[in-house]
Amino acid sequence: MIKEAIYHRPKHNFAYAYDKETIHIRLRTKRHDVEEVTLIHGDPYVWKEDAWQYDRAPMTKSGSDDLFDYWFVAIKPPYRRLRYSFLLTDNQEQTVYTEKGFYDHVPADDTAYHFCFPFLNEVDVFTPPQWVKETVWYQIFPERFANGDPSLNPEGILPWGSAEPQPDNFFGGDFQGVIDHLDHLTSLGINGLYFTPIFKAYSNHKYDTIDYMEIDPQFGDKETFKKLVQECHKRGIKVMLDAVFNHSGYYFEPFQDVLEKGTDSKYFSWFHMWDQEVKTTPQPNYDTFAFVPEMPKLNTEHPEVKQYLLDVAKYWIEEFDIDGWRLDVANEVDHAFWRDFRRTVKSVKPEVYILGEIWHDSMPWLQGDQFDAVMNYPFTNAVLKFFNGEIPLEAFRNEIMHVEHMYPENVNEVSFNLLDSHDTKRILTYTEENKEAVKLMYLFQLSYGGSPCIYYGDEIGMTGGDDPGCRKCMVWEEDEQDHDLFSFVQGLIERRKTEPAFDNGGRMTFLDDDDLLIYEKKSDNQTLRFVVNTTDCDHSVRLNDKIERVVYQDQKSNVGDQELQVAAEGFVIIEI
Amino acid sequence: MIKEAIYHRPKHNFAYAYDKETIHIRLRTKRHDVEEVTLIHGDPYVWKEDAWQYDRAPMTKSGSDDLFDYWFVAIKPPYRRLRYSFLLTDNQEQTVYTEKGFYDHVPADDTAYHFCFPFLNEVDVFTPPQWVKETVWYQIFPERFANGDPSLNPEGILPWGSAEPQPDNFFGGDFQGVIDHLDHLTSLGINGLYFTPIFKAYSNHKYDTIDYMEIDPQFGDKETFKKLVQECHKRGIKVMLDAVFNHSGYYFEPFQDVLEKGTDSKYFSWFHMWDQEVKTTPQPNYDTFAFVPEMPKLNTEHPEVKQYLLDVAKYWIEEFDIDGWRLDVANEVDHAFWRDFRRTVKSVKPEVYILGEIWHDSMPWLQGDQFDAVMNYPFTNAVLKFFNGEIPLEAFRNEIMHVEHMYPENVNEVSFNLLDSHDTKRILTYTEENKEAVKLMYLFQLSYGGSPCIYYGDEIGMTGGDDPGCRKCMVWEEDEQDHDLFSFVQGLIERRKTEPAFDNGGRMTFLDDDDLLIYEKKSDNQTLRFVVNTTDCDHSVRLNDKIERVVYQDQKSNVGDQELQVAAEGFVIIEI
Repeated sequence: MIKEAIYHRPKHNFAYAYDKETIHIRLRTKRHDVEEVTLIHGDPYVWKEDAWQYDRAPMTKSGSDDLFDYWFVAIKPPYRRLRYSFLLTDNQEQTVYTEKGFYDHVPADDTAYHFCFPFLNEVDVFTPPQWVKETVWYQIFPERFANGDPSLNPEGILPWGSAEPQPDNFFGGDFQGVIDHLDHLTSLGINGLYFTPIFKAYSNHKYDTIDYMEIDPQFGDKETFKKLVQECHKRGIKVMLDAVFNHSGYYFEPFQDVLEKGTDSKYFSWFHMWDQEVKTTPQPNYDTFAFVPEMPKLNTEHPEVKQYLLDVAKYWIEEFDIDGWRLDVANEVDHAFWRDFRRTVKSVKPEVYILGEIWHDSMPWLQGDQFDAVMNYPFTNAVLKFFNGEIPLEAFRNEIMHVEHMYPENVNEVSFNLLDSHDTKRILTYTEENKEAVKLMYLFQLSYGGSPCIYYGDEIGMTGGDDPGCRKCMVWEEDEQDHDLFSFVQGLIERRKTEPAFDNGGRMTFLDDDDLLIYEKKSDNQTLRFVVNTTDCDHSVRLNDKIERVVYQDQKSNVGDQELQVAAEGFVIIEI
Repeated sequence: MIKEAIYHRPKHNFAYAYDKETIHIRLRTKRHDVEEVTLIHGDPYVWKEDAWQYDRAPMTKSGSDDLFDYWFVAIKPPYRRLRYSFLLTDNQEQTVYTEKGFYDHVPADDTAYHFCFPFLNEVDVFTPPQWVKETVWYQIFPERFANGDPSLNPEGILPWGSAEPQPDNFFGGDFQGVIDHLDHLTSLGINGLYFTPIFKAYSNHKYDTIDYMEIDPQFGDKETFKKLVQECHKRGIKVMLDAVFNHSGYYFEPFQDVLEKGTDSKYFSWFHMWDQEVKTTPQPNYDTFAFVPEMPKLNTEHPEVKQYLLDVAKYWIEEFDIDGWRLDVANEVDHAFWRDFRRTVKSVKPEVYILGEIWHDSMPWLQGDQFDAVMNYPFTNAVLKFFNGEIPLEAFRNEIMHVEHMYPENVNEVSFNLLDSHDTKRILTYTEENKEAVKLMYLFQLSYGGSPCIYYGDEIGMTGGDDPGCRKCMVWEEDEQDHDLFSFVQGLIERRKTEPAFDNGGRMTFLDDDDLLIYEKKSDNQTLRFVVNTTDCDHSVRLNDKIERVVYQDQKSNVGDQELQVAAEGFVIIEI
C-alpha cells in the first residue's frame, strides 16, 4: 500500500455536511492500490469500559482519476458529532489511517487519534438555492441578442448582422428584443437567463462600468428591465446579472475624480494608487485588471467602496427582483468582501444564486460563506477536448472524476457547467463545425449534474471564434437557423426535466469500455444508461440488463433485446 | 518519483499570505524521493510573443516527517498576483507539477495550467495580535492560586492546601490572591495570564456558567477584577479569560426557565430540545456537552443567543479591558458564530487574542476569519512523549515537523503551546517526578516558536495527576517550593526575551544526530544551536563551527573549542 498517496483532511471536499443530518466522508488512495475501505466511526463521547465505541461502514469507490481512487460514504451521526478513521485493506496488509498516522489496529483508548467532525451545525451546511439544481441557463450578450426598440439605437449603429462583430461596433440589441423573443427561450425549455453586464458603460460588452446604479440607455430603461424580469418570472425563468466589482470602468465617476484631483479627490483611496501623482501611461501607476489602465481595481477593503457595492448588490434585488449575481474576476477580490456580500444579498433574498467567475480550483470560495458556485471551466475543458477528439476516452473519464471530487456534492449540484461563453470560441467553431460532436457535447452536458448553461445562438448552430467572433448578432431568420440542432437540444432539456435520474437526481458512474463512453445515472427509482459513440465507426454493445425503455437515441442506432447497435457519432439512452 | 505523494493545494497551509506583500508556498513530496524543487512563478498577465513569462525560485526543504518532505519558498509578487507550478527533479526524471497534473515541460501557452493565488488582498492576511508572539503565558485556576480575601470564603471551605483537590471541594482562591502574588509572576518573567472561568457558577472549576455577565462572588467583585487587570497591565501582563459558549450551566436562568415552563418558555429555542416535554433523566432529551445533562448545548444559531453571547464577549473587553478570549469546546460551536464573534471582538479592540480550545487538526478555524490560534495539543503530545522516553528521537523530530507544517507560519507564531493544564496530569507527575526531563521540556517549549504557557505551580515543582489532581492549591511556603526549577524556567524566559533567535525571531531546523536532540534557531543576525541530551549517558559532539558565545548550559556539561561534552539529561546552547 502506498501510504503517501492516502489523503484525507476534514472539512472542504473530504468531510463535509451534505445536509443538516448527513456527513459525507471521502478518502483518496493511489489508483488500484487498495481493495477495501471501511469507515470506523462513532460519537466521541460514547465509551464503555474505557474503550471508545465505534461502528463500521463500508465505503464505496466513487470514482478514479489518472492517479487516484476515491472512496465515499454518507453517515448520519445520531448526536451530530463524529470521530472516524479508515480501515484499509489490500492483498498484503490491513492498516488504520487516523489523524495521527497509520496503526495496525483501531486505537480505542483515546478518540484524539481519530479525525474529527466535531458537530454538524445546520447553519454551516453549504445550502445553495434549490431552484438552481433544476435550472438550465441561457446566456445572453444583450447587445447581440435582439433589437426590439430601434428608438434606443446608439449612433453609428450597424444593421443587424450586417458585419462581423468587432471590439467597437454596435448592433443595438436591447431588453425589448429579449422580451420579444421569450417564446424562443421557453420553447427551447430553458428556465434561467444570465445576462452579461447591463449597466451604463461605453463598450459593447459593458464590462467597463460607468454607473452600477444605472442601466445602459442602449438596452432600455429601468421600467423595461423590470418588465423583462416580470415577463421572465411569469414564464418560470430566473434572471441573473453580471457584476464587475473587481474593477470599475475608466469613466466611473469616482475614478474620473481621482484623475482630475489626484490626492485631493475624496475617492483617492477607493482605488489602489501607488503614488501621489496619478499616471495612466506608459503604464498605470495604480492596480488594474491585468495591466489595463482603463480598468482600475476597486479597493474593496475600503468601507465606503464596500458599502457602495453592497448597496448595488441589494438595489437590483430589492427593486427588480433579480435571482442571481454572476461575479466577474471574483477571485481577485478579497474573501472578506465576499463574506459580507453573501450576508447582505442573502439577507434581502435568501434564494439568490451567487456565482463566481473563477477558472481555477475554487475550494476557498465554496465553503458556504462566500459563493454558491463557480463557472466550471475544468468541466468545460474536459468535455471540449474529448468530444473534439483531443483526448482519449480514458483521460476524459479521469478528468470528469477529478472534477467531481474537487468539491463537495452539494457544491457540484449547482455548479455552473458551460461549454462556451462570450469569452471563448463557440462550440460549433471549436469542433470545426462538426455538428454531431456538438450534439454529443450537449448530450453529456445536459445529462450531467449541476446547472448547465447554453450560450445564445449555439442552439441554432451559430459559429464564431474567440472574442469578439463569438459575439455575433443572433440569427432570427428561420431559414438560417439549424432546426434539427434546436430540436435536439430541446429534446435533451425536456428529458432532463422529466426523467428523474437525468439531472441532479441521478448519481453518475462510468462503465468501463475501450471504445464507447458508457455511463449510468441512478436515482432511487430509475437507472439510466447512456451509451455514446464518439468514434467514426458503428459499435455494438452486448447487454446483460433488461431494457425497460428506450429513452432517447439518434436515428441510425438500433436497440435490440440483447444488443445495442450504436452508430458512429450516435448514442442510445435506455432505462434498465 | 512517487507522483501520488506530491501534494499542494492553495490556500490554507500550502499557499498563504504571510504578510501584505509575501506569499508562502509549500509543497509536500514523499520523503527522500525528490532531490530538488524549483518554483515556476509569474504574474498571470505578463506575456511576450504568446508565451507566459515566468521566473524560477529554488525551494528549500523546510523539514520532514515520517512520510513526507516539505519544501518552502517565500515570494513577493510585484503586482500581488501569482500563478505557479513546481519543477521537480530526482535522479531519474524531471517533471512539472501543475494544477492540471504532471507535464514534462512548463506549459506556457495558457496560465490556466498553473496553480493560482489570484490576488494578495491585505484584509485577508491572517493577522493575529503581534504581542502574542512575545508573550509567555501563565495559566491560573482561580480557586487554587491564592486566597487573598478571606471575607469572600464560601461556606464549608477547607484550609489552604489541607486536602487533595476533589471535584467538589473549595479552598477559597480569589482575585486578591492573584494581585498579592503578581511579584511572583513578574519575577518568573511571564507576561500573559490565562484564567480558567471566573463567571458565576456552582462548581470550583466554573465551567458550568450561571451568569456570563457576573463574576463569581467567591473570586471578588467587578471592582477587584478591574483592579487585577489594571495591576497586570501596569506590569506589562496581558489578561485572557475563558468563555464557555458551547453550553451553559444547568442553573443558567434561561435553561431553568425551560425546565420550568417547557415550550412556554421564551428560551425554549435557546437550546436544542428534541421534544416538547423536557427530560433530564435517564438521558437528557436535548443536546448537551458530551452526555452531561447539566451542560445543555446553547443554540448559537439563534439570533438572541448569538446577540447575548456577543454582548458578553464585548462587555468584558469594553468594561475591563481584557486582552484575550480562550474559547472552551470551540470546535462544536458553528463557524458562522465564530466569524461574527471575531468581527465583534476585533471591532471593539483589534488586539484581542482569540484562542480556541481544539485538540485536533484545526485548519478550518485558522483561515483568518475565526480564531487567532488553538491550543496546540499535537505539540504537547510530541514533547511529553519524547522527553518522557516514550518515543525515539527520530519520531519526535518527525512529529514536530508534522506540527510545523500543519498550519501557516503566521499561525504557528501565535500557537498556544502548552505542556499541561487543568485538564491533564502535571508534567512533573507525567514524568514520574523526573525533574531533569521537566527541565528539558521547558527548554524545548521556551526555545520554540509560538506562545508558550506554563501551568501555575509547575515552575516550583508541583505535582498532580489527571483532573482533579492537577488542581491542587498553589504552594506558597518558600521551603516547599523548588527554587532551582523556578530559576531555571526564569533563566529560559529571560533568554527567550533577550536572544533574538530564541523565540519566534528564529526559524527552527533539526540537525541529524542519532543520540542527541540538536536544533538550530536562525534569525537574520543570530544562529543559536541547541544540543540536548535526553539520554542517561554523557555524550560529546564535535563542532565544525566557531562558537561565538555560550548562551546557556547545565552545570555538568562542558564546552570546549572543538567539542561539546553534554552531560546525561543536560544541554548546551551556543551562538555560532
